[in-house]
Amino acid sequence: MSKTRLEAFSDGVFAIVATLLVLEIHVPQLPHGHGAGELTAALLALAPKVAIWAASFAFASVYWVNHHQFIAALASVDRPVLFTNAIFLMALSFLPFPTALLGEYPRAVPALTTFGMSMAGIGAVFFVLRSVAGRRGLLAPVPAHVRRAANLRGAAGPILYLAGAAAGFASPVLAWAVFLGVPVLYVGSSAADRHAIRAVS
Amino acid sequence: MSKTRLEAFSDGVFAIVATLLVLEIHVPQLPHGHGAGELTAALLALAPKVAIWAASFAFASVYWVNHHQFIAALASVDRPVLFTNAIFLMALSFLPFPTALLGEYPRAVPALTTFGMSMAGIGAVFFVLRSVAGRRGLLAPVPAHVRRAANLRGAAGPILYLAGAAAGFASPVLAWAVFLGVPVLYVGSSAADRHAIRAVS
Amino acid sequence: MSKTRLEAFSDGVFAIVATLLVLEIHVPQLPHGHGAGELTAALLALAPKVAIWAASFAFASVYWVNHHQFIAALASVDRPVLFTNAIFLMALSFLPFPTALLGEYPRAVPALTTFGMSMAGIGAVFFVLRSVAGRRGLLAPVPAHVRRAANLRGAAGPILYLAGAAAGFASPVLAWAVFLGVPVLYVGSSAADRHAIRAVS
Amino acid sequence: MSKTRLEAFSDGVFAIVATLLVLEIHVPQLPHGHGAGELTAALLALAPKVAIWAASFAFASVYWVNHHQFIAALASVDRPVLFTNAIFLMALSFLPFPTALLGEYPRAVPALTTFGMSMAGIGAVFFVLRSVAGRRGLLAPVPAHVRRAANLRGAAGPILYLAGAAAGFASPVLAWAVFLGVPVLYVGSSAADRHAIRAVS
Repeated sequence: MSKTRLEAFSDGVFAIVATLLVLEIHVPQLPHGHGAGELTAALLALAPKVAIWAASFAFASVYWVNHHQFIAALASVDRPVLFTNAIFLMALSFLPFPTALLGEYPRAVPALTTFGMSMAGIGAVFFVLRSVAGRRGLLAPVPAHVRRAANLRGAAGPILYLAGAAAGFASPVLAWAVFLGVPVLYVGSSAADRHAIRAVS
Repeated sequence: MSKTRLEAFSDGVFAIVATLLVLEIHVPQLPHGHGAGELTAALLALAPKVAIWAASFAFASVYWVNHHQFIAALASVDRPVLFTNAIFLMALSFLPFPTALLGEYPRAVPALTTFGMSMAGIGAVFFVLRSVAGRRGLLAPVPAHVRRAANLRGAAGPILYLAGAAAGFASPVLAWAVFLGVPVLYVGSSAADRHAIRAVS
Repeated sequence: MSKTRLEAFSDGVFAIVATLLVLEIHVPQLPHGHGAGELTAALLALAPKVAIWAASFAFASVYWVNHHQFIAALASVDRPVLFTNAIFLMALSFLPFPTALLGEYPRAVPALTTFGMSMAGIGAVFFVLRSVAGRRGLLAPVPAHVRRAANLRGAAGPILYLAGAAAGFASPVLAWAVFLGVPVLYVGSSAADRHAIRAVS
Repeated sequence: MSKTRLEAFSDGVFAIVATLLVLEIHVPQLPHGHGAGELTAALLALAPKVAIWAASFAFASVYWVNHHQFIAALASVDRPVLFTNAIFLMALSFLPFPTALLGEYPRAVPALTTFGMSMAGIGAVFFVLRSVAGRRGLLAPVPAHVRRAANLRGAAGPILYLAGAAAGFASPVLAWAVFLGVPVLYVGSSAADRHAIRAVS
């Protein structure tokens, strides 16, 4: 299995998952004879679905960049990496479900928990994927402080999403703040240590 | 991040978005014992959905060609370009929603407004994407008159779609004329200045 | 626009369209307390949907091979070819709709007509695509008898599908025989003149 | 038809099928005024759908790896291989239907039978695909014991799934054990004889 094929296949799953997300924003069904005001109200009521769609798309974009950097740093592909990557893609392809669920029930604790845990799960599998490759000596060696920074960032995502899921029990608004904020945080932090990353990959 | 990967990923999103559009044209559900006349009538009633599907597919095709020319003129990819492109793909992947909405409510002002603003938004993000790359010196230098023509064309789309959205308040038919006409216009105008473009890319 | 990109994008649309077709075969919804016999009956009632799904998948496969041979014979891509190809992809991406329609209303004349005309339309646009490329001198020159055979085969598909659509007015069974038979015929005939094709492409 | 195009197209179908599977896990629709307990119960009731989604995703991943090894061992592509591969992709693209069906009716014999037979069918077509390529001399020669092992593994899948389908008449739990267990078995066994495979491909 060449790196090129693995990356092309993974990219396909990323592109499809990200693009499918919008299908969960359904066109409102109004009875005949509705007025413009009712349709406008129905569209405004879609705001949570649009917000969580954007957050999930951003999440997928961030992991797409991370996954690309991971593959770029990979010396070769062996079976454990191949199968861990398959489990990562499986977890990633689950994304439309928690996104649709939270869009449908934006204040419900079970929906907030499912969403937070799903995102944490995807991030955790990616963390495991990098660890598997690292322990098998397939990743280019990097200075200890760079590896620590990368590990920290890789662990921060899942921990924050779990914190968001937990926050949902106290306040849905707080959970939403976490879910919408983490992708933004990632983009910002990745901009901060891009020099370190460039040095690695 | 190589140009090749960025383009392959973007192409994937373009292909998926364009192909998903047809899923919003649902098969009519008629009660048992319907006659051929009722099914024919139900199919003819799908005309607005088919028309707007075609317009959105043409829109995606035009931007696919534009995006390809943009990538071809790009010297390299940096993080701001990468993330602006991700925002562009996010906006693009939203396309099925306004298309389905306008197909469902072809005369409703909120649907016309949502459609026009969505299309304008996609075009505007693409304009920003080119500006970001240009300001960062990543685009091959072109004669001033070529750049002005490209800027004009890039701005014309969003402005026309906003005009179409505004026209919807006065006349849905006028808005539809704009929405169906802009892709045709783009194809025509791009044929007109292909020499200039060829000189650039 | 390189041939490679055009082909990769077209392949993406082919793969997505072909794979989406199955989504139109919905799982039967039975009331609670149903027996195995009712579910079996509901599954057997899906036979027309499965049959037309297979025929449409085969249709897409045949045109995928034809499209590949067309691109292989193409010297370069210009704008008319690019936009005619976009129209072909638009027509192709419509495939799930007539497939779902005929699966839902297997005996209804409007469904048979829509299906036959859609398939004829896709084939006709492909015929136009090859003609456009040929008239612009972009196709490798071939002996006259090979070109005539290719033209005949390219025209036969649309004509047969139109005949199938027309047959639907007299007998749905006859129309179905045509719709299920044409892809098989294509595979057979393409096996027959593969030597001629190999000589060309 | 080059191996590269055939593989890219096949990979596209694999990625799309695998990613579409999750769309069959629908968000529960609860009446307004539901409590967190009802939503939690509705989510827990999705367990069979999630389990069979995971099993089908794993199945697609295993065959993706197998298909890649097959293409790697292929000397060239001729028409019989091309069309048998198209039939394999058609069978593969059917995967979302039996997955959704069994998720909806996890205890119903017709659903268990349809699922087992569909999986067996996909595996059987893949077996035929390898046989067709082998008989036409397109596969690199391998030692007899390696070929026998590969044949055994290729036949084991379909036979196990048919056994699972048959077991469904006696005990749905037993059938589920087979359906969830076979992908795990495949991953394990492929790890066992990876040396043999590496020697071949």
